[in-house]
Amino acid sequence: MTDTSRQVLLKSRPSGIPQAENFEIVDMPVPEPADGEVLVRNLYLSVEPAMRGWVSAVANYAEPVAIGAVMRSLSTGRVVASRAARYQAGDLVTGWLGWQEYACVRPQAIQRKLPASGLPISTSLGVLGLNGLTAYFGLLDIGRPKAEQTVVVSTAAGAVGSCVGQIAKIKGCRAVGIAGGATKTQLCTEAFGYDVAIDYKADDLDQALAAACPQGVDIYFDNTAGAISDAVLKHLAVGARVIVCGTASVASWSPVPQGPRVERDLLVKRASMQGLLVMDHEARYPDAIEELSQWVSAGRLRYREDILDGIEQAPGAIAGLYRGDNLGKRLIRLPESGS
Amino acid sequence: MTDTSRQVLLKSRPSGIPQAENFEIVDMPVPEPADGEVLVRNLYLSVEPAMRGWVSAVANYAEPVAIGAVMRSLSTGRVVASRAARYQAGDLVTGWLGWQEYACVRPQAIQRKLPASGLPISTSLGVLGLNGLTAYFGLLDIGRPKAEQTVVVSTAAGAVGSCVGQIAKIKGCRAVGIAGGATKTQLCTEAFGYDVAIDYKADDLDQALAAACPQGVDIYFDNTAGAISDAVLKHLAVGARVIVCGTASVASWSPVPQGPRVERDLLVKRASMQGLLVMDHEARYPDAIEELSQWVSAGRLRYREDILDGIEQAPGAIAGLYRGDNLGKRLIRLPESGS
Repeated sequence: MTDTSRQVLLKSRPSGIPQAENFEIVDMPVPEPADGEVLVRNLYLSVEPAMRGWVSAVANYAEPVAIGAVMRSLSTGRVVASRAARYQAGDLVTGWLGWQEYACVRPQAIQRKLPASGLPISTSLGVLGLNGLTAYFGLLDIGRPKAEQTVVVSTAAGAVGSCVGQIAKIKGCRAVGIAGGATKTQLCTEAFGYDVAIDYKADDLDQALAAACPQGVDIYFDNTAGAISDAVLKHLAVGARVIVCGTASVASWSPVPQGPRVERDLLVKRASMQGLLVMDHEARYPDAIEELSQWVSAGRLRYREDILDGIEQAPGAIAGLYRGDNLGKRLIRLPESGS
Repeated sequence: MTDTSRQVLLKSRPSGIPQAENFEIVDMPVPEPADGEVLVRNLYLSVEPAMRGWVSAVANYAEPVAIGAVMRSLSTGRVVASRAARYQAGDLVTGWLGWQEYACVRPQAIQRKLPASGLPISTSLGVLGLNGLTAYFGLLDIGRPKAEQTVVVSTAAGAVGSCVGQIAKIKGCRAVGIAGGATKTQLCTEAFGYDVAIDYKADDLDQALAAACPQGVDIYFDNTAGAISDAVLKHLAVGARVIVCGTASVASWSPVPQGPRVERDLLVKRASMQGLLVMDHEARYPDAIEELSQWVSAGRLRYREDILDGIEQAPGAIAGLYRGDNLGKRLIRLPESGS
């Protein structure tokens, strides 16, 4: 193999949302796997809102990506050479393979081998990947939904939100989505089965929530941490659970932005807010993926993808997420080379 | 009985902390109990921080006390006449008997008959009343303490906080109290067994917390909802539980004050904040009071009382709580008359 592997490196640390100029693309020789290593040719690279945290120097749940290192990501690809047990050329795998064409890794970096499910392999990074799992554990473990309860979801048409809304419906709940713009709200009700979708850019959010949630909000799955969240907290039902999953509305956490204090809402409604990190549930991924796969195969869990072609799209792809450019799970597709 | 009964009525609705001028004291004839009613001569009236919420017109967990009505309170007294089964003259009872000398109530208003425990009857309104129960359910049910964990308590020398710290020690935790002034911090370590007490008025709170909680804060029992709480949230350990019990630092919730957004701390630490209303646990009061009584009798759960003599002290007593005038549970003692 004398092919080259293009890699996206972190060039500088962004102060807020990572921008294209914080990355650079370099050409490296394709590595040879050492003993115990697996060489994977990536086919899809994931783009996540959480990447903002991964490149931030501020204390986080993971070590920050080092300057000059390959950008951390989940990716899915095909094993081209293996010197590790359990993997062989031709296997499709997903794992921490990074924003690069070729990843040479130890098996610990691989999350799973994809089964011959008949589902597109891109689903391994979205509805059957971190996004579906985040929705699954956040809604079911922290939210503990009961039939007839009202579940409100922000970024409702997004890769995580769309799964939350549909799992809520599978569990017999009323699902209310909040999204920006007519295209996304239409997607919420027509593709993802939300009972009501609220356009926070066009509607009076407070009035719309009151109308959509006459019994109050039992579960709020939040990806925003801004004005949308502030509005929903005013409508909590007694005993409500708020799942804190993402903070898309906050451009920068340094300094920490101010917002209305939540203590009184939590106290009066005996409600809880709890942060979710899906990786804490890793031991249960296999069971969750099995159940999610069944729902996808049965047509009960639908998804949208927003696919950008070519690794040169990666550097600017995170900023686009925060602008709301995408409709569905954002992925970078790499053409499978002849190598 | 031609005696008169003095009552404290709510005269006007305060905008923030209730002040003496929001109440008036009137003389009424002592009522005759109708069929099914119990007449109680109150001996102790409770003064609670929560009374601010009870007299507020802003949505709350209970109907606001009406203007012109007797101030709602828990009180303890002696039955002087009963036309209800299960109660007879001479019984000591505690319940929703109000700020008045005589209460004529149906049995539903009575929480319990006091047993001949040998403990002072005033304990029924503090360590064996709402305060002890709040500490008990908040720390044990929401906090779920494990031995060796670090429990931080604000208003640590107060009627609730002092119980939280001591129950934390009973459960094998490290207890760190935050209180204002040397007298209170000394009380924390000398009377209530805290491992460390931080004087938020004198110490650098952030540095003191870092020193007192090298492994981070596993459980934070908060009664303040202000700058103290903001400081503690920076020190949460992974998986921390924050019990939102009171909001003593917030002078008014209208408009809702701003504070640093909590979402990122909750997310990064996978922590939860949950509101506590002790009355949700009413079905389990008897078991909890039994266990608390055993701890008190065994000298493992100590308490302080701040007793004001005479019903004329009641109107100004809530404001004094918020000024931090009291050391221990604030009560109004009414002399037992000859009637």
